[in-house]
Amino acid sequence: MTLSMYEVSVAVFSARLKALSSVLSTAEQNAGERKIDPQVFLTARLAPDMFALTRQVQIATDHAKGAPSRLAGREVPKYEDSEASFAELQARIAKTLDHLATFSAADLEGSDERIVEVRLGGREVSMAGLRYLLHVAMPNFYFHLTTAYDILRHNGVPLGKATFLGSR
Amino acid sequence: MTLSMYEVSVAVFSARLKALSSVLSTAEQNAGERKIDPQVFLTARLAPDMFALTRQVQIATDHAKGAPSRLAGREVPKYEDSEASFAELQARIAKTLDHLATFSAADLEGSDERIVEVRLGGREVSMAGLRYLLHVAMPNFYFHLTTAYDILRHNGVPLGKATFLGSR
Repeated sequence: MTLSMYEVSVAVFSARLKALSSVLSTAEQNAGERKIDPQVFLTARLAPDMFALTRQVQIATDHAKGAPSRLAGREVPKYEDSEASFAELQARIAKTLDHLATFSAADLEGSDERIVEVRLGGREVSMAGLRYLLHVAMPNFYFHLTTAYDILRHNGVPLGKATFLGSR
Repeated sequence: MTLSMYEVSVAVFSARLKALSSVLSTAEQNAGERKIDPQVFLTARLAPDMFALTRQVQIATDHAKGAPSRLAGREVPKYEDSEASFAELQARIAKTLDHLATFSAADLEGSDERIVEVRLGGREVSMAGLRYLLHVAMPNFYFHLTTAYDILRHNGVPLGKATFLGSR
């Protein structure tokens, strides 16, 4: 396994999103078993001024679709952000995985030093691709991915770290 | 900014741990203002079978000290895991940042393909350095980093994503 922008971006986003899909499947199944309306989980949040589960999943996928696109100099696909069920969130993850599958390692070669434009704190900022990936996209992605998991664990969904990591 | 194992590991761990230090400073100050015993925050958890704040910070720093050490073929420093206050957690973060500062880019060159030994699920596993970094150490690190933040947000500490990211 050799270091490349592809491995550091596309391969990481893909592996973690597959794991997120399992996390959400477990949650949906658990809602069924406990006779909890799935909306309870989908609208759950850890603090009144934090995003609910659905929005956490939306933003995680936004970073996963946005980062490789910007690095490769492609248009970022637009999503409607209208998901309102586990099935729709799963479809969004699947669509993002399909988008990620369109990138080859060659598409991202040299993107570490390419200047990308990104909207941060309400304004357009230019920065090197590697800085954007490692210090903007990836920490944001992991933030929303982990917070989605934490919301579900806080609501009693039986999940373990192995599911978060995608190691089972 | 050029892609290297150093940038993908040491530089990321360092930036995020500095941000974690700010997150914990905000929490300690907030405990003081709200006249909450700091132990309430340090022992808070999101679910009965999840780790409390102190342990989240310990594990995050474990990955930050462990990954570059394993990649460089050095001994991983041992910590006592006896922290029981915000000041002691800050000292642990500072010690980890000092350890990270001992690595040069040259120390990690070629470590993407170097085979490292790592304990996973109770047994020793061998894997390529890059796989270990991107699919074991980094997701675990971000998991505990984010969960520490989420615990504090859940307890009403006024934090924003910018502090998590270290962008202010």
